Amino acid sequence: MNRTSGRLIKAPENFIDRAGVGRVFAEAKEGRRDFLRSAFAAAAGVAAAGSAVAAQPEGDPNILNLPEHSKGLGQPVVTDGYGKPSRYEGNVQRRQSPGLTQTAQASVSFAPLQSLFGIVTPSGLHFERHHQGWWDIDPSKHRLMLNGMVKTPKVFTMDEIMRLPSVSRFHFIECGANTGMEWGNVAVPTCQYTHGMLSCSEFTGVPLITLLEMAGADLKAGRFILAEGADGSSMTRTIPMSLVRSGEVLVAYGQNGEMLRPENGYPLRLVVPGVQGVSWVKYLRRIELGDQPYGTKDETVHYVDLMPDGLHRQYTSIQECKSVVTTPSGGQVLLDKGFYSISGLAWSGRGKVKRVDVSVDGGRNWRTARLQDPVMSKCLTRFNLDWVWDGKPAIIQSRAIDETGYVQPTKPQLRGVRGTRSIYHNNAIQSWLVQESGEVRNVQLS
Amino acid sequence: MNRTSGRLIKAPENFIDRAGVGRVFAEAKEGRRDFLRSAFAAAAGVAAAGSAVAAQPEGDPNILNLPEHSKGLGQPVVTDGYGKPSRYEGNVQRRQSPGLTQTAQASVSFAPLQSLFGIVTPSGLHFERHHQGWWDIDPSKHRLMLNGMVKTPKVFTMDEIMRLPSVSRFHFIECGANTGMEWGNVAVPTCQYTHGMLSCSEFTGVPLITLLEMAGADLKAGRFILAEGADGSSMTRTIPMSLVRSGEVLVAYGQNGEMLRPENGYPLRLVVPGVQGVSWVKYLRRIELGDQPYGTKDETVHYVDLMPDGLHRQYTSIQECKSVVTTPSGGQVLLDKGFYSISGLAWSGRGKVKRVDVSVDGGRNWRTARLQDPVMSKCLTRFNLDWVWDGKPAIIQSRAIDETGYVQPTKPQLRGVRGTRSIYHNNAIQSWLVQESGEVRNVQLS
Repeated sequence: MNRTSGRLIKAPENFIDRAGVGRVFAEAKEGRRDFLRSAFAAAAGVAAAGSAVAAQPEGDPNILNLPEHSKGLGQPVVTDGYGKPSRYEGNVQRRQSPGLTQTAQASVSFAPLQSLFGIVTPSGLHFERHHQGWWDIDPSKHRLMLNGMVKTPKVFTMDEIMRLPSVSRFHFIECGANTGMEWGNVAVPTCQYTHGMLSCSEFTGVPLITLLEMAGADLKAGRFILAEGADGSSMTRTIPMSLVRSGEVLVAYGQNGEMLRPENGYPLRLVVPGVQGVSWVKYLRRIELGDQPYGTKDETVHYVDLMPDGLHRQYTSIQECKSVVTTPSGGQVLLDKGFYSISGLAWSGRGKVKRVDVSVDGGRNWRTARLQDPVMSKCLTRFNLDWVWDGKPAIIQSRAIDETGYVQPTKPQLRGVRGTRSIYHNNAIQSWLVQESGEVRNVQLS
Repeated sequence: MNRTSGRLIKAPENFIDRAGVGRVFAEAKEGRRDFLRSAFAAAAGVAAAGSAVAAQPEGDPNILNLPEHSKGLGQPVVTDGYGKPSRYEGNVQRRQSPGLTQTAQASVSFAPLQSLFGIVTPSGLHFERHHQGWWDIDPSKHRLMLNGMVKTPKVFTMDEIMRLPSVSRFHFIECGANTGMEWGNVAVPTCQYTHGMLSCSEFTGVPLITLLEMAGADLKAGRFILAEGADGSSMTRTIPMSLVRSGEVLVAYGQNGEMLRPENGYPLRLVVPGVQGVSWVKYLRRIELGDQPYGTKDETVHYVDLMPDGLHRQYTSIQECKSVVTTPSGGQVLLDKGFYSISGLAWSGRGKVKRVDVSVDGGRNWRTARLQDPVMSKCLTRFNLDWVWDGKPAIIQSRAIDETGYVQPTKPQLRGVRGTRSIYHNNAIQSWLVQESGEVRNVQLS
C-alpha cells in the first residue's frame, strides 16, 4: 500500500538543526514525498501563523547555512529526448489496488492525487481503467467509421481527422466507479484509492458534430449515438445527441499538448465532458447515429445503480458535483500542531464549481475556501484554505456547490436516496479524521 | 535535422484507397507525425470546404472498411507506474541544434512546437537551457536562503516551503534568445528551431512576497532582489520588487501537476511571469533583497541588446508580444490544395493576448484568427484559422496584439529600431513560404 508506515519524529525546535533534518529526510525517503509536506509542522507553522521563524544562528548566513552549490558540469541537454521525473519522485506513481479485480487487463490504476498540485494531471500519472487491456495502435492503420442515420457513411483516417478545425479544452474525467468502495463501511486508506480514478487534461480534437455533418447526419431524427472502441472488450456506449449538438463532445487525439497516451486511447478517444469515463470510449473506431438508446451490456449490466427498491437505475452518466481534500488526507501524518494549508479538488459534470466549503469539525462549521483560477466548466478546480491545527482530533471535509446550485451531499443524505447497494456514482462528502497522534485516516460518519 | 526529407505523394482521389493509404503512411512513418497532418489534403479539404467526402464503396460499411478490432487481452494496468508516449511518437522530441553551442552542458534543446496541441507543453518536451548542465538535487538537502535587507535572514527547507499557502498558475516561459538566429538572414528550417525555446506549464508555488514578509523584508527600501541558483554557473539575476510585490513571482516546486523536472530546476525554481527564462532561476538557493540592480555577469555581459549606436541595452527582460504559426510551418509539406487549419501560438509578457491576425499573402491582407479559451495573462494562447489553399505560393504570417495595444512588429520595423546585431529579444513576425510544390520553408522578407 502506498501510505505512510508510521509517525515521523517531531520537528526540531530550530529547523536548521542538521541532525534533525537528516533524520526526518532519511525516514521520508523511505516513504513518500508527502512526508516532506507534513514535516517540520511546528517550526513553519508558528511562522505562518504570524510569529517569527526560528532565526539563523549567529554569523554570516551566506556562509553558514547553505549547502555548497554544484561545482563542475552537470548533465547535458537532451539527456532524454523525452524527459522523466526526478529519481527522488519514484514513489509518485499510479497504483493498482491489490485484489480489486481478477485480472490486470480488466482493472484500474489510481492517480496519486495526494501528490499532485494544481489541476493538470501529468499524462504519465493519469488513472487507467481498461476492460480488455490497453493497446498501442498504429495510427496509420486506425480508422473511424461514421454510420447509421447518415446520408453517406464514412471512414476517416487519422490524417483526415487531424487536419480539420480543432478545439482544445480542459476537462476532468472520472470513472463512474470512483469512490465506489465507500458505499459500504469500507474505509479505503488514502485518497489515491478513494478518489484516484479522476484526472484532468487539456484535450484537443474535432467536435463530433463536425464529422457527423460531413457524413450528412440526420440531425432531426438522430437522437443518440453509439460509440465503439477498437479494443477487444466490445466496449460500446450510448450518448445522447443533446451533448453532441452542443459541440462539447470531441473526437480527441491530443492530451496535454501531445498525442493521447496508449493507456488513454491512442490514437483516438471520445471526450464527453461531464460524463463518466466509460463513455469516453478509447481506441474509438465507430460512431453510429440512431434514434433510441442502444442498451448495450456496458450500460444495462454495468455502470447501473441498484436502488433501495431493487430496481436498476440506468443511463445515469453525468458526474454530479463532488470534491475531496487531498492534503491532509488518509495516510498522511501531521507532525505537530500549527499552520497547514488545506488543499483539494472540486468538480461538476454540470458546469463550473461555484463554491467549496471546508469543515474541520465533521460538518458542524464551514468556512469558504479560495478557488484557484481558472475555474472552467466540467474541469477540476483547485481549492485551498488556511488552517491552524490545535492538536486535537479534527474531521476534515469539503463540500462543493456547482453553478446549478447543486450541493454535494453527505453520505447519510446520499444513502437516504440511493441505499447502500450501489457501486457507481458516489459523490458524497469525504471525511478525513486527524487523530491526536497526527495520523490521518478515512472515517465513515453515520 | 528534424524536418521533412521530401515531398509526399499526392492524395488519392478516394481517400479510403488502401494502396494510397499504405504508401503515405509508410513514408510518414519514416519521417515525423507532422506528415500525417498534411496528408490527404485534397480529400478532406474538399469535404471541409463544403462538398461531400468521397463516399464508401458499395456494400455494408460496417463490414467492408474497418480494420478488425483487437482480439484477446491487451497490456495490463500499471505496465508503467509512470507512463510514456506511444512507440509511434518517438520522433516527437526536444532536439539540440548541432553546432549551436560548444558544449552540451551550456546549451539548448528546443521543444517540438510543430507537433504540439493546445497550450500545455508536456514536461517531457519542455525546452532546456542550461548554463552548466542540469542536476537532480536531493530535495532533503536543498535549502533556500533569504538575506540582504531583511530583519531575520532565513533558510527554508523544501518542507517548510511546501506547507505554506500556494497558488497554481499557467504561464509561458521563453528564453530571451528565442528566435535569435533570425536577426540576420539565417532562415532556420523549422519552428522547433526558430521558436522552440518556448514552453507553457501550470506552475505551483509560494508567492515570493510571502517568504520575504516572513523574513521581515524592508519592503520600502528594498527595490530589487537577486536570485541565485545552486548549479555551477553562478547564475544570478536581478528582478525588480515591483514584479515581486504584485504577488506574481513564485518560488515554484510544481509544474503541470507534479514536481518540477530536474532539467527545469527541481526541486525549486523562480517563476517570473512575462520575463525571459534566464530570470526564472533554476535550483533556486538564495534570494537577496537590495536597493539597486546587482549588475551581475548574466545581465551585463549576456542577455543584453547591442543597439545600432553601439551601446548595450540592459535589463530588457520583459518578453514583448509575439506569435508564430506552427501548422503549416517550415519543413512541413502540403500535399495538395484544399482545406487547412492554420494553427499557432501567441503570447505577451505584458498580459493577455487580445487578437491575432493571420496573413497568407505576406502581410498584404489579414484575417482575424479564433482564440482558444482560456486566454490567460502571460500565458500561451492557441489560435486557429480556416484556410483553403489554391495551390499557388503563399506566405503565411501571424501578428499578435496584446491587451496593452502593442502590435507585434514586422522584421523591418524591429530592425529599424534595434539594428541587426542583437541576439536576444526578437519578437518579429515570422514568415513561412508555402511553395507550389507544397513544401513550406522559412523566408526572410526584407
